[in-house]
Amino acid sequence: TRRGVPEAILAEGKTPTETADLAATSVETTRRAVVTRVDSETAQAVEAGLPDPVDIDYDERARTLVAHAPDFDAPALDATVAVVTAGTSDAPVAGEASVVAREMGATVEWLEDVGVAHLGRILDVLDPIRAADVVVVAAGREGALPTVVAGLVDTPVVGLPVSTGYGFGGDGEAALAGMLQSCTVLSVVNVDAGFVAGAQAGLVARAVDAARSGEGSN
Amino acid sequence: TRRGVPEAILAEGKTPTETADLAATSVETTRRAVVTRVDSETAQAVEAGLPDPVDIDYDERARTLVAHAPDFDAPALDATVAVVTAGTSDAPVAGEASVVAREMGATVEWLEDVGVAHLGRILDVLDPIRAADVVVVAAGREGALPTVVAGLVDTPVVGLPVSTGYGFGGDGEAALAGMLQSCTVLSVVNVDAGFVAGAQAGLVARAVDAARSGEGSN
Amino acid sequence: TRRGVPEAILAEGKTPTETADLAATSVETTRRAVVTRVDSETAQAVEAGLPDPVDIDYDERARTLVAHAPDFDAPALDATVAVVTAGTSDAPVAGEASVVAREMGATVEWLEDVGVAHLGRILDVLDPIRAADVVVVAAGREGALPTVVAGLVDTPVVGLPVSTGYGFGGDGEAALAGMLQSCTVLSVVNVDAGFVAGAQAGLVARAVDAARSGEGSN
Amino acid sequence: TRRGVPEAILAEGKTPTETADLAATSVETTRRAVVTRVDSETAQAVEAGLPDPVDIDYDERARTLVAHAPDFDAPALDATVAVVTAGTSDAPVAGEASVVAREMGATVEWLEDVGVAHLGRILDVLDPIRAADVVVVAAGREGALPTVVAGLVDTPVVGLPVSTGYGFGGDGEAALAGMLQSCTVLSVVNVDAGFVAGAQAGLVARAVDAARSGEGSN
Amino acid sequence: TRRGVPEAILAEGKTPTETADLAATSVETTRRAVVTRVDSETAQAVEAGLPDPVDIDYDERARTLVAHAPDFDAPALDATVAVVTAGTSDAPVAGEASVVAREMGATVEWLEDVGVAHLGRILDVLDPIRAADVVVVAAGREGALPTVVAGLVDTPVVGLPVSTGYGFGGDGEAALAGMLQSCTVLSVVNVDAGFVAGAQAGLVARAVDAARSGEGSN
Amino acid sequence: TRRGVPEAILAEGKTPTETADLAATSVETTRRAVVTRVDSETAQAVEAGLPDPVDIDYDERARTLVAHAPDFDAPALDATVAVVTAGTSDAPVAGEASVVAREMGATVEWLEDVGVAHLGRILDVLDPIRAADVVVVAAGREGALPTVVAGLVDTPVVGLPVSTGYGFGGDGEAALAGMLQSCTVLSVVNVDAGFVAGAQAGLVARAVDAARSGEGSN
Amino acid sequence: TRRGVPEAILAEGKTPTETADLAATSVETTRRAVVTRVDSETAQAVEAGLPDPVDIDYDERARTLVAHAPDFDAPALDATVAVVTAGTSDAPVAGEASVVAREMGATVEWLEDVGVAHLGRILDVLDPIRAADVVVVAAGREGALPTVVAGLVDTPVVGLPVSTGYGFGGDGEAALAGMLQSCTVLSVVNVDAGFVAGAQAGLVARAVDAARSGEGSN
Amino acid sequence: TRRGVPEAILAEGKTPTETADLAATSVETTRRAVVTRVDSETAQAVEAGLPDPVDIDYDERARTLVAHAPDFDAPALDATVAVVTAGTSDAPVAGEASVVAREMGATVEWLEDVGVAHLGRILDVLDPIRAADVVVVAAGREGALPTVVAGLVDTPVVGLPVSTGYGFGGDGEAALAGMLQSCTVLSVVNVDAGFVAGAQAGLVARAVDAARSGEGSN
Ligand SMILES: Nc1ncnc2c1ncn2[C@@H]1O[C@H](COP(=O)(O)O)[C@@H](O)[C@H]1O
Ligand SMILES: Nc1ncnc2c1ncn2[C@@H]1O[C@H](COP(=O)(O)O)[C@@H](O)[C@H]1O
Ligand SMILES: Nc1ncnc2c1ncn2[C@@H]1O[C@H](COP(=O)(O)O)[C@@H](O)[C@H]1O
Ligand SMILES: Nc1ncnc2c1ncn2[C@@H]1O[C@H](COP(=O)(O)O)[C@@H](O)[C@H]1O
Ligand SMILES: [Mg+2]
Ligand SMILES: [Mg+2]
Ligand SMILES: [Mg+2]
Ligand SMILES: [Mg+2]
Ligand SMILES: [Mg+2]
Ligand SMILES: [Mg+2]
Ligand SMILES: [Mg+2]
Ligand SMILES: [Mg+2]
Repeated sequence: TRRGVPEAILAEGKTPTETADLAATSVETTRRAVVTRVDSETAQAVEAGLPDPVDIDYDERARTLVAHAPDFDAPALDATVAVVTAGTSDAPVAGEASVVAREMGATVEWLEDVGVAHLGRILDVLDPIRAADVVVVAAGREGALPTVVAGLVDTPVVGLPVSTGYGFGGDGEAALAGMLQSCTVLSVVNVDAGFVAGAQAGLVARAVDAARSGEGSN
Repeated sequence: TRRGVPEAILAEGKTPTETADLAATSVETTRRAVVTRVDSETAQAVEAGLPDPVDIDYDERARTLVAHAPDFDAPALDATVAVVTAGTSDAPVAGEASVVAREMGATVEWLEDVGVAHLGRILDVLDPIRAADVVVVAAGREGALPTVVAGLVDTPVVGLPVSTGYGFGGDGEAALAGMLQSCTVLSVVNVDAGFVAGAQAGLVARAVDAARSGEGSN
Repeated sequence: TRRGVPEAILAEGKTPTETADLAATSVETTRRAVVTRVDSETAQAVEAGLPDPVDIDYDERARTLVAHAPDFDAPALDATVAVVTAGTSDAPVAGEASVVAREMGATVEWLEDVGVAHLGRILDVLDPIRAADVVVVAAGREGALPTVVAGLVDTPVVGLPVSTGYGFGGDGEAALAGMLQSCTVLSVVNVDAGFVAGAQAGLVARAVDAARSGEGSN
Repeated sequence: TRRGVPEAILAEGKTPTETADLAATSVETTRRAVVTRVDSETAQAVEAGLPDPVDIDYDERARTLVAHAPDFDAPALDATVAVVTAGTSDAPVAGEASVVAREMGATVEWLEDVGVAHLGRILDVLDPIRAADVVVVAAGREGALPTVVAGLVDTPVVGLPVSTGYGFGGDGEAALAGMLQSCTVLSVVNVDAGFVAGAQAGLVARAVDAARSGEGSN
Repeated sequence: TRRGVPEAILAEGKTPTETADLAATSVETTRRAVVTRVDSETAQAVEAGLPDPVDIDYDERARTLVAHAPDFDAPALDATVAVVTAGTSDAPVAGEASVVAREMGATVEWLEDVGVAHLGRILDVLDPIRAADVVVVAAGREGALPTVVAGLVDTPVVGLPVSTGYGFGGDGEAALAGMLQSCTVLSVVNVDAGFVAGAQAGLVARAVDAARSGEGSN
Repeated sequence: TRRGVPEAILAEGKTPTETADLAATSVETTRRAVVTRVDSETAQAVEAGLPDPVDIDYDERARTLVAHAPDFDAPALDATVAVVTAGTSDAPVAGEASVVAREMGATVEWLEDVGVAHLGRILDVLDPIRAADVVVVAAGREGALPTVVAGLVDTPVVGLPVSTGYGFGGDGEAALAGMLQSCTVLSVVNVDAGFVAGAQAGLVARAVDAARSGEGSN
Repeated sequence: TRRGVPEAILAEGKTPTETADLAATSVETTRRAVVTRVDSETAQAVEAGLPDPVDIDYDERARTLVAHAPDFDAPALDATVAVVTAGTSDAPVAGEASVVAREMGATVEWLEDVGVAHLGRILDVLDPIRAADVVVVAAGREGALPTVVAGLVDTPVVGLPVSTGYGFGGDGEAALAGMLQSCTVLSVVNVDAGFVAGAQAGLVARAVDAARSGEGSN
Repeated sequence: TRRGVPEAILAEGKTPTETADLAATSVETTRRAVVTRVDSETAQAVEAGLPDPVDIDYDERARTLVAHAPDFDAPALDATVAVVTAGTSDAPVAGEASVVAREMGATVEWLEDVGVAHLGRILDVLDPIRAADVVVVAAGREGALPTVVAGLVDTPVVGLPVSTGYGFGGDGEAALAGMLQSCTVLSVVNVDAGFVAGAQAGLVARAVDAARSGEGSN
């Protein structure tokens, strides 16, 4: 776990058995396994392959599986990450971001379905977004939500483009381009890179936590 | 003037003299000249080349010049087009749209600097936007404004992407892609095609005007 | 139904059961369901899941399914939308446009197989196209038909590029680019965005209908 | 002159003096010079540098200069090439095609400003187009004209995309893509490749001429 | 059969039954069917669906099927088309070109596996290539063969890019770009557009044949 | 100054006089002006146009000009931003980042010419990079430096691609793509968006500073 | 075997039987078969189809199969090729490079998992890399490893981009662009072109071997 | 001089004075200066700024300037690099390659104007190409020449794409793509990267020279 970022296992492109073996080794050596892009068949193989007693949390929508050995010493940061999604199809990618930030020890505030075409909804959830130390905003299609959110908060925002949309600019390209062109201040990760967005937010949370505990003042 | 759309003269790529000659011919034959992308040197050449008395309107920011002969019979529609811009750099392109719609006879409501990162400003100008029969929304960079506006009005919206921005998605490509991917209902014209956006809005205004005067009921 | 545009359920990417559940909820809450990109298996699931008596219209070619509860109060506009297709492969996408416009209350005039390489055919169908208040023109490959139609009518034209074609410019890119470059006045929606084109035409039809009923004169 | 195609000198990117020297050498060795993309300064330098008496033809709009020594034995084919342009901005590129075909010995029929948005104009010039043995059609922006022409004639058509247009698909890309996607039978050359289009038409004219003179029957 | 080009049925994207029905109708109305991109299951369906006696020619490699009714009056041109391929993977696309040219009545000379990296092979087949009236050259990957062939013959060459290759410029884009950039005189069709290349060559063959029979001299 | 980010004036595309006027107004209303992409002529115009006494800092290499009125209350954060550049050509863009972070109150640590092809140099400057709370890494051409740095530090890294390079992937596209594809955890801004990178780092610095001063603990 | 590069059979896109037949013919005529992109079903078919006794080496990870007849006279060069991979997903493509270089007679030094984000690992394997005469470096995602290696060795480096990665620059495009933009001296092959990279390294090894044996001094 | 590659000064983007200063420093510290992309004004400034006596070689066509102090100890390799160009417009870029290889100590064989459309010319220069230890082949437009050359020689070939050409694939993209797709064995550098191509060839020459002098046998 360099920088506190857990080594995650990407299940996509591996057989259930390969993934299960890697997860078992990870639990053995680090007392934890974080697996992403897991379908239900793979989840079963992983669960079957892990020793007892292990605490397993499989999130079907986010397609993530996290396993903690009883003696795993979970990090706990005094810092909050808000994860905001534009629509239901952004949930899996945003879910990855959420899991990673949580495993890095941050408190995660999840705020979903905050579409840019319904401004009322954004205003409703503004308080919990503003209360967080750093915000991840996932959006597909035209990807305008991170810009709107960054115009309303005081904290760093990480834009997470999602590969929805079709035709010209589809597959997340319009969303990525829109976030890079944003007329507000944002930084961005690659299309569908939920893991990276969550980990970057986690790194900010770690910096804030360290400052809160009195580390590192100049 | 097919469909009521004036034949415009695109000054860009022509010498001042060529443009002036075309404008003079246009006034002679149609009693009007509409010239776009006019710099001040060309404007002077055109003014010098037109017969007296002619009513000349040169808009330096929109880079348009309109000339009406005294006997020009200006169209007048019972319909309004709102032209909304995201930022000051969108003004020249949006100005083209405004001029064309006005020359087609529509009343034009101009609403400028309605940035997507300042939601308060949008809500301030919502009433006049809602009062129009059709809306043109010009925006560069991430081009999110037409989506936000279309989520707030009941009328057709035409998105007009502007070639601002730099790096990936610059030159209007992110704005165009974002409008095409919009999660609301919009139609779109090409980057910087202010003339086309204004004329399309003018065609809708004509349809509304005709309906108001009792034409064409089924 | 904001702006009179029905909330549609996109069946693509959902299981038949998920789609059927969403459709049942939609009928329950809004007395109507509009489902797009429906294959026959999904259509059966939806039909089975809807309460009796409901009026169901499944269009196999357009891949749309519309359900009306007996007490659904269908809108009716005094306005016509023409939907024109270049070839048979444009029919599914154009069909989506047609269904949405009809569900918004417009009368739809369907004119198919009006290829740009056979000018005679275009001239044959010109009268019904000209009689409509707004025109949607669907075309794939080189996408030239909207330009030719817009040169022949007096009303607004919405270009709808279709993802046919192969090689360079295939998948609708040449059609989209051609419509954006058109030397006539057009607005455009994204590739295969039949729903958006139909809804934009429906919004124009609503404006015309309101004007015909005497609303909104300045 | 391989295949009867004259070696042309591309003035663009050369100094007037360099171009003049190459033209003088060309006249000396082949009794002819064909220079393309010539501005007026270069034209003067070339004229000054050529020996007397030489017959010089400088076409300002096509930006071509052709020089024949008195003893140049001009080829003469019993075959006609039609060169058709969509708009005035296509004229320089189409002019290059015309000059090359003529220098290969073909009779050239020039038909200009045959825009695709005015079908009447196309029908007016159909007879001379049909009378030619091969047709070059130059078009910018959406590049639809070659498709419309190929749907009306019985002979081979070569599409010549021109780098007009702006925004998405500008600089001739939409025109090129549209011609490659054409739903009729066409072959195509690169954007602004007037020289190549004219030479390819000239090669067809040579094949027809040879057949007319009785060569090569199987 | 406009311009003598047969109406072909594209089997790809149709069920075997749909294709068989269209083929049967084509034979009934035109005494011929030309079907492209046919797999063996479809070929069987088509054969089963055609009336007896019909002459059927299914080319497995070119994936084409041609059916002639006994009373079909096949065209016969006094002209030859050479079809040259760079490698074995170009054969299916080139085969389409060959079938169309033959059905238009041309004599077809087939010359395969003429790779650009083995100059000896090119020189071996030069005589039959030179003897043809027009040449189609199919090539994938870097697509250099049409340029080399056009440098060696006196007749028109049509370049046919094939969607082989991988990585940057794969799927025929490098081949298409290379042919459009060729330093010799060529015209080009879209990637994998064997039908178009063959038909364009057929149109040249028709022009040559007409000239040989004494038609159309000026 | 929303979020503490100063409103900057982009001199590029404005005349020296326009820029000077905007700078004077900015000093008048906010007691400060931050101008970016300033050439020396514009710098003189701005200096001449500002009232006395004002503290002016013109950085020729970064092309930034900062003016503080005597009563300007400069923010001061207890947090450090490291700005690292790969080569000398990255300095102007990185300089923008540095100025913005400093104006937001952060201490800036500037580390230049840390090329990825000379690993020794990276190791030499590792201590000051590690001591910062957040790191901006600017790199052009292949843009690999942010990846290497992020592999060596414990804090958040913001990648800043610079528009150097030529040929395929030039103008910063390879650098942007490389940073988005990074196998470590990074977030990214658009090509040459030094202002955005600096402001995003400044926002992290503000969060750390607030935590150090005891704000916001959960 | 021109230039000593073995003719390889690409199994991808062929049936197991086709591949087996080609392999048998290759052994018969050249006493060797080199097959690439082989899955286990194809490997079995090839093994079954080869005559006895033949020495078969199937590398499951590299997906290559090499067969030598007993009387095959294997080349042996006095030269070494190092093949370095950035991560485990680069192994199949790098494996192809390795097999080809070995079959050309070079000694191959295989060094895997030398990620750019862990500089220690690179320094560990530097000695065997430096000892080789030429180096192939395979890397996906951001493709930075060849640049780092080339900065540390004295010999020619061939960059081999691998089609890993997703989103913008995915499928090997970022890696290719990064290697082409490298600020060190490298040459490059296409994405996933392991065969070409290995053969190019093999050609350098042949040149070195010939020089070592005293050939070709000027 | 790492790997024997001279540190070159890129004059493009620097003032004549800046370049002259860097050149003077380079001569002072390394006894040599290699300057690329030098125009005549800069060449004069450099010459004026260098101390006497220095041996200066300014190549106007290659736009390179090389200066050797009297005590410069020029490397001399027992190895030859052939530099082959397709056309006259490739000469400047190929010239850069030539200068770098020579400064690394290789003997350079220069073979120009070896167009792919005139096979005779290629065969004429085959002997000196074959005699070299490594070959750089520069080509623009369709970039086919390196493929043809690599099919005829036994040594490593480095393809050098040149930014000639226009329209689709212009600016060297078609040439780069064609070389990456080559059906022979080649490695490639970026468009116009003459310096890199020459240095890579120089590295091969160094390896060969070392082998000839008996170094490094295994
Ligand atoms: N700013 C503009 N944008 C798009 N089209 C324009 C513009 N100004 C004029 N046009 C149209 O372009 C055509 C004029 O082209 P030209 O013949 O080159 O002057 C006419 O059809 C005009 O209506
Ligand atoms: N065929 C379609 N094309 C574009 N948008 C659609 C289509 N069908 C449904 N929609 C819209 O897509 C959204 C539904 O998305 P979802 O929540 O994923 O079902 C709603 O706003 C619909 O109005
Ligand atoms: N306008 C043009 N477009 C394309 N090729 C041309 C043109 N003018 C001349 N050429 C050809 O370009 C080559 C001349 O290139 P250069 O040696 O650079 O003068 C000759 O093969 C000419 O036939
Ligand atoms: N023509 C050239 N093409 C590519 N790299 C060059 C060229 N000339 C000089 N260089 C390299 O570019 C770097 C100099 O960049 P700079 O510090 O901007 O002068 C050095 O590594 C040179 O070796
Ligand atoms: Mg969104
Ligand atoms: Mg905007
Ligand atoms: Mg079409
Ligand atoms: Mg056109
Ligand atoms: Mg090929
Ligand atoms: Mg760099
Ligand atoms: Mg890598
Ligand atoms: Mg070339």
